[in-house]
Amino acid sequence: MEREKALEVVKKQLTEHRYQHTLGVMETAIELSERFNADVKKAETAAIFHDYAKFRPKDEMKQIIIDQHMPSDLLIHNTELWHAPVGAYLVKTEVGIEDEEILDAIRFHTSGREEMTQLEKVIFVADYIEPGRHFPGVEEGRELAKQDLNDALIYALRNTIMFLAKKNHAIYPDTLRTYNFLIFEKMGEF
Amino acid sequence: MEREKALEVVKKQLTEHRYQHTLGVMETAIELSERFNADVKKAETAAIFHDYAKFRPKDEMKQIIIDQHMPSDLLIHNTELWHAPVGAYLVKTEVGIEDEEILDAIRFHTSGREEMTQLEKVIFVADYIEPGRHFPGVEEGRELAKQDLNDALIYALRNTIMFLAKKNHAIYPDTLRTYNFLIFEKMGEF
Repeated sequence: MEREKALEVVKKQLTEHRYQHTLGVMETAIELSERFNADVKKAETAAIFHDYAKFRPKDEMKQIIIDQHMPSDLLIHNTELWHAPVGAYLVKTEVGIEDEEILDAIRFHTSGREEMTQLEKVIFVADYIEPGRHFPGVEEGRELAKQDLNDALIYALRNTIMFLAKKNHAIYPDTLRTYNFLIFEKMGEF
Repeated sequence: MEREKALEVVKKQLTEHRYQHTLGVMETAIELSERFNADVKKAETAAIFHDYAKFRPKDEMKQIIIDQHMPSDLLIHNTELWHAPVGAYLVKTEVGIEDEEILDAIRFHTSGREEMTQLEKVIFVADYIEPGRHFPGVEEGRELAKQDLNDALIYALRNTIMFLAKKNHAIYPDTLRTYNFLIFEKMGEF
């Protein structure tokens, strides 16, 4: 899909603030794709649509999770996790994007998964470090993403884990699974 | 088993430093059992033997994990986790303790598990806060353990999770599972 057309479609689904975030993720995802050899055009499309479902009513998202047999543990965990898999579903059914690599990048952009593709990693990290993000540690994430996509991804995941633990919130098991997988993979490298 | 006899048996397995730690866990476990209605005598025995396998050679522990069909993911995670399930096995086979509640308290004193018994929680928390422990935050753990055993347990687990994440170490999935279970249980209380 043409960039301008895609942006026009997604703009209607988002607040102005979230649309600006989406533009930031798009620019960052393109940059990371060039640096780390992911498909630039697919990264652009996945970035544009990654938050497509962000403002859908929780009831609608819940129903889609149930009807589409998505992992049921989503329902007991933070509702912030829902827009990623629900987004992949809606981008396919409402927008008509059928490329499974793009849909997976949307699907796993919040939890991650074991054995992520380069495209999935690019979208995950771009979402974390895009220029509109301001939180303690985001600069270190940006620095890591200049050198090593896995290190930036590990950094984002461990910060998420620490943030949730510090607040006594539950931690989604797939987030931990992704983190552990990357740590073990990295240990194997040494 | 008589306290003096049990201490004599375990002393041979431990360094002097670890034996002193064991005495601290024993005193704390007795105190917590009285406060939170666990079996005081079982807590004493479980505390005395909780680190029984701590100084066994890694090769021996690994072989026991394999031969006794213990969870195989232990083998890829930190070897510090091994002495708990291996300890339960050796305390049964070498010392002759057959009480499954005591053995489970030894087995799960490092990872925890979902639906822990009061005795298991007492040993886990006592191990974390006994008077010989000195690390940032241990005082808060002690304070929590005066009021609420679950809060103290959540505190110990989340500190462990944060400590490992901060060091970019893998986190044992059962540790997270225990933490999440307690968080969800607590949310249900409100």
